[in-house]
Amino acid sequence: MRVSIIGGGTVGEETRETAADTGRLVAQQGHTVVCGGLGGVMEAACRGAKEVGGDTVGILPTERRADANEYVDVPVATGLGHARNGLVVMNGDAVIAIDGADGTLTEVGFSLVFDRPIAGLDTHDVPGVKACETPEEAVRYVESELGV
Amino acid sequence: MRVSIIGGGTVGEETRETAADTGRLVAQQGHTVVCGGLGGVMEAACRGAKEVGGDTVGILPTERRADANEYVDVPVATGLGHARNGLVVMNGDAVIAIDGADGTLTEVGFSLVFDRPIAGLDTHDVPGVKACETPEEAVRYVESELGV
Amino acid sequence: MRVSIIGGGTVGEETRETAADTGRLVAQQGHTVVCGGLGGVMEAACRGAKEVGGDTVGILPTERRADANEYVDVPVATGLGHARNGLVVMNGDAVIAIDGADGTLTEVGFSLVFDRPIAGLDTHDVPGVKACETPEEAVRYVESELGV
Amino acid sequence: MRVSIIGGGTVGEETRETAADTGRLVAQQGHTVVCGGLGGVMEAACRGAKEVGGDTVGILPTERRADANEYVDVPVATGLGHARNGLVVMNGDAVIAIDGADGTLTEVGFSLVFDRPIAGLDTHDVPGVKACETPEEAVRYVESELGV
Repeated sequence: MRVSIIGGGTVGEETRETAADTGRLVAQQGHTVVCGGLGGVMEAACRGAKEVGGDTVGILPTERRADANEYVDVPVATGLGHARNGLVVMNGDAVIAIDGADGTLTEVGFSLVFDRPIAGLDTHDVPGVKACETPEEAVRYVESELGV
Repeated sequence: MRVSIIGGGTVGEETRETAADTGRLVAQQGHTVVCGGLGGVMEAACRGAKEVGGDTVGILPTERRADANEYVDVPVATGLGHARNGLVVMNGDAVIAIDGADGTLTEVGFSLVFDRPIAGLDTHDVPGVKACETPEEAVRYVESELGV
Repeated sequence: MRVSIIGGGTVGEETRETAADTGRLVAQQGHTVVCGGLGGVMEAACRGAKEVGGDTVGILPTERRADANEYVDVPVATGLGHARNGLVVMNGDAVIAIDGADGTLTEVGFSLVFDRPIAGLDTHDVPGVKACETPEEAVRYVESELGV
Repeated sequence: MRVSIIGGGTVGEETRETAADTGRLVAQQGHTVVCGGLGGVMEAACRGAKEVGGDTVGILPTERRADANEYVDVPVATGLGHARNGLVVMNGDAVIAIDGADGTLTEVGFSLVFDRPIAGLDTHDVPGVKACETPEEAVRYVESELGV
């Protein structure tokens, strides 16, 4: 299955570590990481997944595949700007949100629109998002919701 | 100026009245109502605006202009599905959110992404959304934020 | 009804005159001009329509309504880049193509995809496009195809 | 590199064979096949690529990855309808068009918009499309244009 990992493009070291841990765990469980393809949480999550040989897909807001971070296996250019946020979520079976600001809030909303189970790590406090303490808990939550 | 009025497509009578009052006020102030073009809050807001001779724009998720409610002056078909939510917000100078569920949450997020002042009436409790008690307060808030 | 007028953003004086004549005729017949909102054919067509008091809609590739030419009554920002080309055609009941290069070719294709009658003035020679000699002939053609 | 193979969703046996041959050759040359993910030319091209162990990406018009044909390795849902056509081309470094109707014409246009070299096999006769007689010639053409 695929797990979309969403979160800010500019984040601190601690958040990057959380994202890398989450990406690593998702990949170790045999799932593909889907993200927005850029920096911050997106890059760290892909880096974590690649450290354990996982697969990564990055769905970019720009028209250029070259804008993807170096840990994205399959970059997908869209040229849609912020409208690509919906596509990031649509292409996962579940979602894990890490930190994040306004763009992430749109993705949280799309997770609910598309009926994807969503776990949150230090992110928006919105009904429907399962607040978790650790990447392990977040991954377990989305797996259990999908019956994996 | 333009005010995007966002909210659920299926809502109760009280919410429809709030939306109609808001649309009426926005129009009376000389602003154009922008919305998602369908039913519920969108239709009521347009109806309110038309009662006082205002202008209305409806940005639809479907490919068919005919899907717009009868109070939309300028229907805009997009065929983008939920990705059109960003366009509804992008086409207003400010936003008023009324009630609403998951789709509205994406629009709240886009309001912050696009740096639009946003007032809320009985809607998502999210930082950055000014919670208001009445349509009058909501319209006054967005006008003052835009220096009108 | 609405007629989408499509064509290049950078064109010579003669082409601009053809576009202005076409916009004027479309408006005189009581139809709204839809276009891509920018310069060249788009601007000239809107200018022609406004000279006779017509209505104009401009569907922009950018996120900024302010990018519309001065003759657009209802600018619609999309932020979709070239993907907005489909929306320009989708929002007309018929299409008139004037000159134009690669972007116009995508719009010609979308006209056929969306089953819009399309007349051409000195534009791509593609099956399905009715080649016309004058704006009058082009407007008559699309009107007759739509049973107006 | 990536080669987008575009063409009709409903085509005859001969066209399917051409598409499969093209997909096979593209993959044998070490390139990834990008397509619209559905049937006809898209499915045959992916099938050809997979017969020789190649990689395939399918960019779908719908919101459901499950709509991809069985030979797509990485399905990408978009929910954009026909607006996804631009993304199919944007995600290749070059394009080979096979047969095809109106939707393919939009993709031919986008190939030129995005400045992708494009070879055609029995497809639209449009300036800028290099008409080729065989899949071998088409693959050679796009490779030489990209300096491969």
